[in-house]
Amino acid sequence: MLDLTHYLKTRQKQVNDKLMALFSPIEKKKRLFAAMQHSLMAGGKRIRPILCISAAEAVGACSDDVLTVACAIECIHTYSLIHDDLPSMDNDDLRRGIPTCHKAFDDATAILAGDALLTLAFELLSTEFLSKFHPENGLHVIRLIAHASGPYGMIEGQMQDITAEQHRLTLDELENLHRLKTGALIAASVNTGALLARATDEQSHLLNDYAQKIGLAFQVIDDVLNIKGDPDCLGKAVGTDLVLQKNTYPGLMGLDTAEKKAHQLVESAIESLISFDHRADPLRSIAEYIVQRDR
Amino acid sequence: MLDLTHYLKTRQKQVNDKLMALFSPIEKKKRLFAAMQHSLMAGGKRIRPILCISAAEAVGACSDDVLTVACAIECIHTYSLIHDDLPSMDNDDLRRGIPTCHKAFDDATAILAGDALLTLAFELLSTEFLSKFHPENGLHVIRLIAHASGPYGMIEGQMQDITAEQHRLTLDELENLHRLKTGALIAASVNTGALLARATDEQSHLLNDYAQKIGLAFQVIDDVLNIKGDPDCLGKAVGTDLVLQKNTYPGLMGLDTAEKKAHQLVESAIESLISFDHRADPLRSIAEYIVQRDR
Repeated sequence: MLDLTHYLKTRQKQVNDKLMALFSPIEKKKRLFAAMQHSLMAGGKRIRPILCISAAEAVGACSDDVLTVACAIECIHTYSLIHDDLPSMDNDDLRRGIPTCHKAFDDATAILAGDALLTLAFELLSTEFLSKFHPENGLHVIRLIAHASGPYGMIEGQMQDITAEQHRLTLDELENLHRLKTGALIAASVNTGALLARATDEQSHLLNDYAQKIGLAFQVIDDVLNIKGDPDCLGKAVGTDLVLQKNTYPGLMGLDTAEKKAHQLVESAIESLISFDHRADPLRSIAEYIVQRDR
Repeated sequence: MLDLTHYLKTRQKQVNDKLMALFSPIEKKKRLFAAMQHSLMAGGKRIRPILCISAAEAVGACSDDVLTVACAIECIHTYSLIHDDLPSMDNDDLRRGIPTCHKAFDDATAILAGDALLTLAFELLSTEFLSKFHPENGLHVIRLIAHASGPYGMIEGQMQDITAEQHRLTLDELENLHRLKTGALIAASVNTGALLARATDEQSHLLNDYAQKIGLAFQVIDDVLNIKGDPDCLGKAVGTDLVLQKNTYPGLMGLDTAEKKAHQLVESAIESLISFDHRADPLRSIAEYIVQRDR
């Protein structure tokens, strides 16, 4: 049996150490880097980089092989949080229990810190692929990640999320929104791990299946936690979706049905991995963790 | 003799046609793409993509060879303008004679449109490099462009520009600021063209020399135009640097000396190209144009 808590802690430490080492002490004195660092090291769960690592492990690679690439994905995730929190977007003061970037610094600095983390991710990726991996494989990963985080993925999802406030979506529209906003980068994380570990076509297909399902389950639970979560555990306010009249799964289908849906998605995600051996256990446990988490 | 007006028009049309073709008619109906398109097609001079093309031509390549890559650079330049214009940054209402992105749409849309253009640039680059060019060469270009536009280049320059408002910089500090804010992406444009056209080490070195000098000249003239330019020609307000107490070359060294400095830089940039044949004429003419332009 895999001890998931231990596994997550070990991987989180690996990711955190690597992220900490991204900037030199001199750079950290600069306002821009301090702001990037503030949000990057604010105690995130590191779900996306860990999914990238676990997917690579499921196909037989080592965590060290894909660590830098996994950290680049976390940079992209963090940039998206910084920009989403801005006053003209979701206007959040707290994130992961500490002041959001624009609260700790200012709006202009937060915009630039986000821009910088996004751009830095592609510098990290290209540098890593020049020294490791087959260059063509590297270009495929860059395209995969850029596509998932750009106007055909995450950013379009965020745009839809903002414009959908205060008008009611159908379940299909809500699912499409989240497939873009959260699902795309989660799937890209898994698919990147698979690609770098040279998964077969069938393995890639199954891992993508797994990723699509946990991506959706992740968002459903996020909505659930916004209703019944503990703000101290979450490190952010709850009940905000209701105030902002956001479209949510519990809002559209009721709290119980939403929770049931998340559990079904996770079960189905784990079934996708049936042909994988014990090396896919972290992926299986992470899927279960997604519906059991309290933050 | 090269007819620069004709050359620029032809190249601008090439770039504009390619940029127009980036999004399908269906996509353009979406708010996010409409906002991206608004700023992308607002009549920019296309200096950076043209420099990329001209540098490639100077080493014997064709404009078509590097057109997509050149357009990706213009996407990055446009994103930087959208974010710089935001109320929390420079707070500009007009750009290239039309409302800035946040004025035509809103702040949130402008932030996302900028994010989207930046991310799209890396998708365009990776896709292009998977079908054309040696993959390793492609990774070098992605790294070059990401480094120039990220926290070690353009974004750090913008951060310094904001924090430097209302306190006086030395000439060295101002030069460093502009080397980052404007110079880095201009140099990357030239160096990308050279790299893709497989320039020799010596050619690359000379072209980089040229790029550093015109990058600086470009900014000096920008400052000059903010004092004595015609707002109708420029498509934006003049005198704003003075109001915002920005550090400028004319402010530090006087208007005449600043103009003289720009001319000297351009002369020296053209000298860097002495060993190149007539295929470098566009680069030579563009250098002259930089100090003669009125917008």
